[in-house]
Amino acid sequence: MMDLAGFSTPPEDRYFEHYLPGAVHEFGLITIEEKAIVAFAKEFDPQIFHTDPEGAKSTLYGGLIASGWHTASLMMRECVQYYFPRAASLGSPGIDELRWTLPVRPGDTLTVRVTILSAARSLSKPDRGIVKSLVEVLNQHGKVAMSLKAVNFILCKA
Amino acid sequence: MMDLAGFSTPPEDRYFEHYLPGAVHEFGLITIEEKAIVAFAKEFDPQIFHTDPEGAKSTLYGGLIASGWHTASLMMRECVQYYFPRAASLGSPGIDELRWTLPVRPGDTLTVRVTILSAARSLSKPDRGIVKSLVEVLNQHGKVAMSLKAVNFILCKA
Repeated sequence: MMDLAGFSTPPEDRYFEHYLPGAVHEFGLITIEEKAIVAFAKEFDPQIFHTDPEGAKSTLYGGLIASGWHTASLMMRECVQYYFPRAASLGSPGIDELRWTLPVRPGDTLTVRVTILSAARSLSKPDRGIVKSLVEVLNQHGKVAMSLKAVNFILCKA
Repeated sequence: MMDLAGFSTPPEDRYFEHYLPGAVHEFGLITIEEKAIVAFAKEFDPQIFHTDPEGAKSTLYGGLIASGWHTASLMMRECVQYYFPRAASLGSPGIDELRWTLPVRPGDTLTVRVTILSAARSLSKPDRGIVKSLVEVLNQHGKVAMSLKAVNFILCKA
């Protein structure tokens, strides 16, 4: 039986072996409201098009949009909840090609789609594997609002 | 006279012409406390090594570390305050080569160093320029804890 993200095992029992090249996992339902956009931006990205719904109208975006770092952080939350293994996650050295392709606006609902590009056992540390993936954040119209390529280290079961 | 970040003009009067290839701008002083690390992680990155100071001790990190997205968001705040132009900032299409190279721990103090790699007038939209930069977050030992390459669109003055 598959869980919501399309895995046959829950996060607690997931290891490197469960991340299969070519697999596509879709999950998450992020609702993003004006109040949260403004709160995040006041703390971390105080540009007018992120913090001031009125002032944002006269900017190039024509209205309030979420900080790209807010969208990225919300994506992370869904990945932790639905996609990453629980105990077998060994973190990430970094990401590449982070793109903000469409504005995220108050009231948008976002989902996450992860396509596993490759999964290879580490040669230097054979207890773990290296999973490379394309992570896309889709809005309610099915359009990609953000994307990135991630590298994750994951413990092997055997 | 130079301001704290090494610019001769304040953010309000800064345009594309003020971002010079080869220039290095250092600014910001981010103090990162346990309470803030835990609060951010509970909302956006609830992995045990980010949310639980006690539980984190038995993970591969040996103690609490900040979410990489928290460090990135704090970097953004300093860039908005000290580095970006105020009205002339036209946003960013994305970033590349985001790397988390050292853990960030409670009590660390971080600064930001931006090296401008290139600055070129847009051919398709001559009212703006494209600035590419290397952004590094340094800890109190002068070591790079996070780095990325950014692209920013900035309005030209003339």
